[in-house]
Amino acid sequence: MTEFSFTLQARDGNARRGTISMPRGLIRTPAFMPVGTQATVKAMYPEQVRELGADIVLGNTYHLMLRPGAERVARLGGLHSFMRWPHPILTDSGGFQVMSLAQLTKLDEDGVTFKSHVDGSTHRLTPERSVEIQGLLGADITMQLDECLKLPADYSEVERAMELSLRWGERSKAAFGGEPGRALFGIVQGGDQADLRLRSAEGLRQIGFHGYAVGGLAVGEPQSVMLEILQETVPALPDEAPRYLMGVGTPEDILLSIARGIDMFDCVMPTRAGRHGQAFTRYGRLNMRNAKHAEDLSPLDPSSDCPAARDYSRAYLHHLFRTQETLGAMLLTWSNLAYYQTLMKEARQAISEGRYTDYVAEVRENWERGAP
Amino acid sequence: MTEFSFTLQARDGNARRGTISMPRGLIRTPAFMPVGTQATVKAMYPEQVRELGADIVLGNTYHLMLRPGAERVARLGGLHSFMRWPHPILTDSGGFQVMSLAQLTKLDEDGVTFKSHVDGSTHRLTPERSVEIQGLLGADITMQLDECLKLPADYSEVERAMELSLRWGERSKAAFGGEPGRALFGIVQGGDQADLRLRSAEGLRQIGFHGYAVGGLAVGEPQSVMLEILQETVPALPDEAPRYLMGVGTPEDILLSIARGIDMFDCVMPTRAGRHGQAFTRYGRLNMRNAKHAEDLSPLDPSSDCPAARDYSRAYLHHLFRTQETLGAMLLTWSNLAYYQTLMKEARQAISEGRYTDYVAEVRENWERGAP
Repeated sequence: MTEFSFTLQARDGNARRGTISMPRGLIRTPAFMPVGTQATVKAMYPEQVRELGADIVLGNTYHLMLRPGAERVARLGGLHSFMRWPHPILTDSGGFQVMSLAQLTKLDEDGVTFKSHVDGSTHRLTPERSVEIQGLLGADITMQLDECLKLPADYSEVERAMELSLRWGERSKAAFGGEPGRALFGIVQGGDQADLRLRSAEGLRQIGFHGYAVGGLAVGEPQSVMLEILQETVPALPDEAPRYLMGVGTPEDILLSIARGIDMFDCVMPTRAGRHGQAFTRYGRLNMRNAKHAEDLSPLDPSSDCPAARDYSRAYLHHLFRTQETLGAMLLTWSNLAYYQTLMKEARQAISEGRYTDYVAEVRENWERGAP
Repeated sequence: MTEFSFTLQARDGNARRGTISMPRGLIRTPAFMPVGTQATVKAMYPEQVRELGADIVLGNTYHLMLRPGAERVARLGGLHSFMRWPHPILTDSGGFQVMSLAQLTKLDEDGVTFKSHVDGSTHRLTPERSVEIQGLLGADITMQLDECLKLPADYSEVERAMELSLRWGERSKAAFGGEPGRALFGIVQGGDQADLRLRSAEGLRQIGFHGYAVGGLAVGEPQSVMLEILQETVPALPDEAPRYLMGVGTPEDILLSIARGIDMFDCVMPTRAGRHGQAFTRYGRLNMRNAKHAEDLSPLDPSSDCPAARDYSRAYLHHLFRTQETLGAMLLTWSNLAYYQTLMKEARQAISEGRYTDYVAEVRENWERGAP
């Protein structure tokens, strides 16, 4: 059985190319993890997700503990066979959705009590229960429970949440134990305060994790703030462990964060935007609901390997979104995920060839130039 | 360029196995035509529909004339390339949806005026305009405009509508002209009145069509009435032309109608029911929303060739429907269409081997026995 390991193959400035090895497979980094919220990457067959080059997907503990329930997933053989994704899965801790989706949330030192947004039933998450749930799901990478604030927030409030998250990180590690091949990631908090971020990173290093996430960004602050925080925080993280920027982001956010040393990303943007008619392409963003596409016979991107981007006309996609046909969401989700995976593949290649900065400049130029 | 032709390969009682040849391909009969209402078979990629064995799909004139519009489809190169279905397409006349979906419908001798259910805009369909629209779409098989009543209805009302439909059939034929390789089908009306059905069939024969549809059934009457009407009507239709029972139906309706000499079917049932969690299987119907499936690891049908029926657990399908995930509709639509196409394939085989009655008995026995 392979242990969890992370090896770096190349560096280009602060950007890194590497490989995470786990019993269920390799994860090539920089990696984008499609979000499979409720045990499905919305509007995609699992085989399609894999064929696009995804090595790992994310599952949401909050959603899965409510439906179908962690114990039920365990009885059914775990999340991998349930959703027919035999490759690595990272699960979040549930904390972020508790704060953003649940009702009547009540936080205390020990954990958080909340009412389900589905049926109003009461649930409790503690660091220990979150680790237990993620174990029941069968997660390959488990995330510690943390408290994630919306920005802007008062310094004292950010400090309190950061310190609570550190204590929860310690309890998560104790609860996790040492199951071989499974990994536990700690989460840096501290909002937009560089000194708090550094204290958080230092505290997590002392506890010791398989990987380190940066949480609490892309929650309302400008991109420049996010990038500054990364610039300050990433050097304080261990060089030999993977770094994961949670919930980020646009293609540009991702490329600029890779340049600052981030290895892993997840975001609902390609899937959610796809369901709403937004296409991410080599030529920038296109809104397929826009009337200008109504008689445009060109595809989203004739040079794409993805049938959704290559074979269907913009006119047809426009029609599917105007008539709210499911196939529109299916095609644009597919095409968007393909574009994200293409970016990651090209980024890895560019890092290996020492031309990452030029690569990012070329990509941005294409976005600005727009469709031919 | 191939002309339209229909050849019979086998008979078994009144059941027939045949082949329609058209420039865009062969249609093996008995044939089930998946419904592609708005230029998409809902929640399916076109390649999937083809791979299941569908030789032809149906498009809805009413929906397509409203969005994206017939002239627009023509400018974009026709419905086939628009929806990426290069094989035969049958379009209906628009009449049925005008009656069932449109608002403020006003019928006169010349045609029907109605307001769109989408935006309330006023539109007009006449037999000539319906044929023109279907030509603009590029239909391989065009249906005449008819008036379709809901049953039960008064004799005099049924008679009036049937006679109007006959006059519209004559005008449709005149408007259709003689484009080689394209076909025009007439539609038998007459409600549940055998004598009116016979007069309708006789009138249509005198006009002369490439094929003959039976319309105005499965609109609320019991199955026994539908089968009686078929029993009376089908012998009055030309033996050498294909016969199409419009909008029918359940797997049982279809098998029993084949036994009465019907060659072609269309129905939203497998696609619509699939979106609502109803599975049609070898073991009968299953409602995936039912709690009894919550921990059932068996697939819908392990012997199916369709990945959706064979590879995903009922527990997972149940979860997808409980959480209203798109993948549930995608999988059940796929599985249901696969089952319908399997039935047609097996029916064709059974007719060739002279054991159609036994085949139907076996299928019904499996439905009644239920899942193992």
